[in-house]
Amino acid sequence: MPITPEQQAEIEAARGAPQATLRAVSPGMEAHLYRAHEVLDHGFIRVIDYMGDDAAIVQAARVSYGAGTKHVSNDEGLIRYLMRHWHSTPFEMCEIKLHVKLPVFVARQWIRHRTANVNEYSARYSILDREFYIPHPSQLAAQSTVNNQGRGAVLEGEEAARVLEILKSDAGRAYDNYEAMLSPEGPDGAPQQGLARELARMNLPMNIYTQWYWKVDLHNLFHFLRLRADAHAQYEIRVYADEICKVVADWVPLAFAAFEDYRMGGVNLSGKAMACLRRMLKGETVTQESSGMSKGEWREFMAAVG
Amino acid sequence: MPITPEQQAEIEAARGAPQATLRAVSPGMEAHLYRAHEVLDHGFIRVIDYMGDDAAIVQAARVSYGAGTKHVSNDEGLIRYLMRHWHSTPFEMCEIKLHVKLPVFVARQWIRHRTANVNEYSARYSILDREFYIPHPSQLAAQSTVNNQGRGAVLEGEEAARVLEILKSDAGRAYDNYEAMLSPEGPDGAPQQGLARELARMNLPMNIYTQWYWKVDLHNLFHFLRLRADAHAQYEIRVYADEICKVVADWVPLAFAAFEDYRMGGVNLSGKAMACLRRMLKGETVTQESSGMSKGEWREFMAAVG
Amino acid sequence: MPITPEQQAEIEAARGAPQATLRAVSPGMEAHLYRAHEVLDHGFIRVIDYMGDDAAIVQAARVSYGAGTKHVSNDEGLIRYLMRHWHSTPFEMCEIKLHVKLPVFVARQWIRHRTANVNEYSARYSILDREFYIPHPSQLAAQSTVNNQGRGAVLEGEEAARVLEILKSDAGRAYDNYEAMLSPEGPDGAPQQGLARELARMNLPMNIYTQWYWKVDLHNLFHFLRLRADAHAQYEIRVYADEICKVVADWVPLAFAAFEDYRMGGVNLSGKAMACLRRMLKGETVTQESSGMSKGEWREFMAAVG
Amino acid sequence: MPITPEQQAEIEAARGAPQATLRAVSPGMEAHLYRAHEVLDHGFIRVIDYMGDDAAIVQAARVSYGAGTKHVSNDEGLIRYLMRHWHSTPFEMCEIKLHVKLPVFVARQWIRHRTANVNEYSARYSILDREFYIPHPSQLAAQSTVNNQGRGAVLEGEEAARVLEILKSDAGRAYDNYEAMLSPEGPDGAPQQGLARELARMNLPMNIYTQWYWKVDLHNLFHFLRLRADAHAQYEIRVYADEICKVVADWVPLAFAAFEDYRMGGVNLSGKAMACLRRMLKGETVTQESSGMSKGEWREFMAAVG
Repeated sequence: MPITPEQQAEIEAARGAPQATLRAVSPGMEAHLYRAHEVLDHGFIRVIDYMGDDAAIVQAARVSYGAGTKHVSNDEGLIRYLMRHWHSTPFEMCEIKLHVKLPVFVARQWIRHRTANVNEYSARYSILDREFYIPHPSQLAAQSTVNNQGRGAVLEGEEAARVLEILKSDAGRAYDNYEAMLSPEGPDGAPQQGLARELARMNLPMNIYTQWYWKVDLHNLFHFLRLRADAHAQYEIRVYADEICKVVADWVPLAFAAFEDYRMGGVNLSGKAMACLRRMLKGETVTQESSGMSKGEWREFMAAVG
Repeated sequence: MPITPEQQAEIEAARGAPQATLRAVSPGMEAHLYRAHEVLDHGFIRVIDYMGDDAAIVQAARVSYGAGTKHVSNDEGLIRYLMRHWHSTPFEMCEIKLHVKLPVFVARQWIRHRTANVNEYSARYSILDREFYIPHPSQLAAQSTVNNQGRGAVLEGEEAARVLEILKSDAGRAYDNYEAMLSPEGPDGAPQQGLARELARMNLPMNIYTQWYWKVDLHNLFHFLRLRADAHAQYEIRVYADEICKVVADWVPLAFAAFEDYRMGGVNLSGKAMACLRRMLKGETVTQESSGMSKGEWREFMAAVG
Repeated sequence: MPITPEQQAEIEAARGAPQATLRAVSPGMEAHLYRAHEVLDHGFIRVIDYMGDDAAIVQAARVSYGAGTKHVSNDEGLIRYLMRHWHSTPFEMCEIKLHVKLPVFVARQWIRHRTANVNEYSARYSILDREFYIPHPSQLAAQSTVNNQGRGAVLEGEEAARVLEILKSDAGRAYDNYEAMLSPEGPDGAPQQGLARELARMNLPMNIYTQWYWKVDLHNLFHFLRLRADAHAQYEIRVYADEICKVVADWVPLAFAAFEDYRMGGVNLSGKAMACLRRMLKGETVTQESSGMSKGEWREFMAAVG
Repeated sequence: MPITPEQQAEIEAARGAPQATLRAVSPGMEAHLYRAHEVLDHGFIRVIDYMGDDAAIVQAARVSYGAGTKHVSNDEGLIRYLMRHWHSTPFEMCEIKLHVKLPVFVARQWIRHRTANVNEYSARYSILDREFYIPHPSQLAAQSTVNNQGRGAVLEGEEAARVLEILKSDAGRAYDNYEAMLSPEGPDGAPQQGLARELARMNLPMNIYTQWYWKVDLHNLFHFLRLRADAHAQYEIRVYADEICKVVADWVPLAFAAFEDYRMGGVNLSGKAMACLRRMLKGETVTQESSGMSKGEWREFMAAVG
């Protein structure tokens, strides 16, 4: 269970005390504030704060005194133009701060995105909770036979049962031993010194949950989402990206729609691919052999235009 | 005049429409929002948005569900501890967005601080206004004779008058010619093509004013302020830093007080300097010769402890 | 003249003293080291140092002990794969350091790319040289009538002459006055205090040349080149980007070829554009009205596939 | 054993083939290239490449054509001046690339330093080796009773033996099960699908070793070293920082000496502390009560000047 009653009470208290502000307010985002959106078996994302809205993007692009253009349709056109032509700085003018609970092996992928601010729960300073990610049977997949860094068919029968049993029992034993090493009492009840927390943590497996505050601007968030909400991303991080996408769609609907069209739904075609395309549009039949592309590129190209 | 009546009306409109929010609100900062704080002869800083407050720093440091500790005194102690021990990530959890109007030569110093988001008024796209920084006579200083990158005594008499006349007339002529090159009419009133804006701008001197939106987190803002509100910074950027300091003191009073004590008022002493200090505290007389320091270092050391 | 005989002698001295190293060496790059590649009327780029080569990209991607794969063809395939799938970190493992001389208004565009290291010649500390960018008549263009931030037809006849005369005489006068303000002698030969350099520089126009050392990794350099070697970039920065492209092609030929195909020659098509494309490939006639795209998007789409 | 004979042969091959270069060469660093400096029980650091030397720092600070000043003594003075006055950009002009093998829990601390380029061995793509960090008995310490994030006395007797046994057996079992889940054969020898690598890795504890290429400029490396070679850093990362310090001392001896004096050996004193110091130097007796400092600050202050 990700949230204790005490934590829930703190969340409700924070949500129960609106205050007046003169800043840009996104009504869609206010509805999300502090609430935990559950992800995986024990994880969540929570919006802690945000800065700006669609109008703030326009305002920054124009370095203007007021708040955007007169008409929403103008804002939409400008935002689409900015997205299409890779003008990144206006999108950097919006910022979001999330509280995220996630397995360590997901956190290790996530933190490769360096253009963000992170404050992680410290296992040197505190003791981690007994919470581990155990995949749902539908996600317990075999190694892909075609993609070196992907997964294939779902495991079945006894093999699936064995894997689940291993993951659960190894996590349980590791945590039991973590507690035993930290404890002021030895196995016989006699007092012991207790291992330093900064050492004991090394016994924990990478499916244990950690938490952090993560703050990022909208441009860099879009970059993160393009890579991590992509079909090739590992499922366990993609579900976080998907959840964040829903929140962003409520926060900056115009910018998110442009992102969906140009980035998530968009395709980057090489010079070679564009040359093929022009030939095909003229009615020519183009094959991999006559395309100048490698087999892998051709397969990806066919998937994009097919 | 930095703000037109239309712009002032936009500012008043923005200030006249408070909305409810569940986010952290800093009352001290709300009073500043959108207002132009004048700097130099035509410049200003305006707070456009902010994220977080003192409690948000504590909350991030603890990766907590609620909002900081129970008591302000605890918050203050923790914030001072974080500042003293160079824990930068909690301070990164606050963010500020400013609208700044400033001379180009100041903008060129400012932008060396790369860990910020910037959106500048484009002189490729738009025509710059006829506004130039002309120093107040009290700031019209001679080159320092001891510091290669500083200024010394204030210019006097005819020399001061000559310099002011040069700055004004060269700026005026450059702007007249900027307009003449852009104009659809030649000097004789006949139509002309009009030079591209992206070329015409190169004729303008570096005391012309530009504008930008500048967004930065509190940790990096403190770094900027330490360097630019310092006595060795050039006056024309220091006055911007000083004005920002006042705003930050109202925004996050506990963090700003810690910054003032540890960074602005603090001194970094080398290992050699600490060794001298320990000898001096034991009653020994230490001279530059016996200090192991160069003359320059010794002079700076004496100034710090004297 | 960009390089004095003394500077040329220093360059020759540096080029005349090869030393042994165990590091990765790019023969194509060694031929460029220290040499000034002239750009515009007084500018240049000079390669001061570099780290890595094509094999270093492969080596990093594999976190390997040795130096890349056994066969160049494998290296090429992997590098193309990395570029196609936006794997940026292996390209970050190469680094280049340039000495660049460029007009201030170009420097102001350039420095918006923040993920680089910069050390600029200081006009607080030193006196700038009397060197200004004066466009070649073939580059003296009118404002574009269709693109708010572009240029159109070349100026002709008297207008061109007037503009050149303005640019030259304003630059000359501004520099004369810069020197006069700095001088220890007044106009009558009598001693004067001399204005501080940090103030006098504000009188200089933005076509004066400055210099800096600029260091950047290959991934971020490619991002810079994609934007600045693009046909929509201002000519005066594009010529620098073009010159850097030639150097990079000699340094990391495989990576540069992939960059040319996927980035410079590549096209990013939106989801809407891909949907149209699929309809067109099936033989359907698609118009702007039936495309779901705005007129601007449709025009850009037609230009890409036409 | 950190390096296989094949890997050692690759290292020797790389070291056996010096080439001519015109770039700045640091003889001290050439001696380190590719060699593995062992850290902890299975880790190492290896210098893969470097850019620049002490003279390159001076050259960048001067934006000069040649290579630094005429005399080493001038270089030293300038480098110390730059370090003392926090001029960071010249130090950014040197770059180092390391190959590091380190336990995952150390990697998680390390990567908080975001201003670096990282390419990590992928456990989605490849299978990790059976190598775990098991602390030497002299490092098997109890939780500190005074410092929430530190360690105290070394564990003794049966408790130490129990902890070592737990760490070894849990790591061994987790790795056995990792292999079993990945295997194409089930426990009975019958074929099984084999769990995806990206999932199986979650069973591994955080003392397993990973590897990465890490590239960073000298300014940011100094920042890393100041925090991680500090006495308060966790031992397991400090030993890496210590080993890097030795390499840097051979690479840029002047810059490293300045770093040692001003940063590692230096102390940052607050405004309050400086006020106390001035009173003490005048002969006044100052106590914690009369200092205006908290008990914690006073204790740290006394330790610095005592």
